[in-house]
Amino acid sequence: MLRTRFKTMNCPIARSLDRVGEWWTILILRDAFSGFTRFDEFEQNLGIAPNMLIKRLEGLVESGLMEKRCYSARPPRHEYLLTERGRDFRPVLLALLAYGNRHFAPEGASVTVVDAQTGAPAEPTIVDRNSGRPLTEPDFAIVAGPAASETTKARLAARSERLAVYPRTQSQA
Amino acid sequence: MLRTRFKTMNCPIARSLDRVGEWWTILILRDAFSGFTRFDEFEQNLGIAPNMLIKRLEGLVESGLMEKRCYSARPPRHEYLLTERGRDFRPVLLALLAYGNRHFAPEGASVTVVDAQTGAPAEPTIVDRNSGRPLTEPDFAIVAGPAASETTKARLAARSERLAVYPRTQSQA
Repeated sequence: MLRTRFKTMNCPIARSLDRVGEWWTILILRDAFSGFTRFDEFEQNLGIAPNMLIKRLEGLVESGLMEKRCYSARPPRHEYLLTERGRDFRPVLLALLAYGNRHFAPEGASVTVVDAQTGAPAEPTIVDRNSGRPLTEPDFAIVAGPAASETTKARLAARSERLAVYPRTQSQA
Repeated sequence: MLRTRFKTMNCPIARSLDRVGEWWTILILRDAFSGFTRFDEFEQNLGIAPNMLIKRLEGLVESGLMEKRCYSARPPRHEYLLTERGRDFRPVLLALLAYGNRHFAPEGASVTVVDAQTGAPAEPTIVDRNSGRPLTEPDFAIVAGPAASETTKARLAARSERLAVYPRTQSQA
């Protein structure tokens, strides 16, 4: 049921999500970035069951991605706003948007990112902020950070070895 | 159960996922980027139930992100390899990695991206590939593409109006 509904939505993000999981939360964030703030707006736009929606919204509040704010005392009414942490999720959404457009939009893009002045289509890509270089291997490497556990260190060391032995998993066409 | 297990994994991606959904599939992709190819490798590294794992792997094959390849005829053995479409998911993982490090790693990063030559930490950020400019609003806008349905067009037009009226959902600190 869920799979089918995500797949047929007119949105590249939803189409990526259909392939990779059950992601109501991401779609709630997507809608929050579109300026939605109220329960009924999310409910109507997503067609999500109220109990599912309240659970996800409360999860987002609990995790610090959204805050619940009273906008009317009588009657009591609340809205949900993105926090700084919530807004910082934007690159993930943009990456999903680009991915969905590239791979799951055979009929063409239904949503795109454009230069607001010229209307020229943008091509979202991930780079290193300081050098501007694309974050691709082997130029950049995924390594253990200062807080890595022993297990993580071992996993990442094994990763380097595997990728050196089986580079086809990274580079084959 | 799942929430707790994702949350305590020593990986910024898993920690982001804990906040935004049930994402075994993403973790399978993450492991595939680490050079894992075999069922028992995924099973062991993720601690996922075999029936869940086979379902997700088959979903990934069906969606064209992975391919199942025979590597031994006797006994019959298969491995799962990322396709070009699967490897193209990498920016989403990098965005999740950066997000998890920024927001859900109070003890410091356990996994980081570094310059492979110098070891200098990279800072993943999303830019427009052509101009190199950061993909932030209001410089860039999310608009309807050529394949947008009438509903999508209306939704995106309403979006522009909402964001103009309530810019605080985008810009407040």
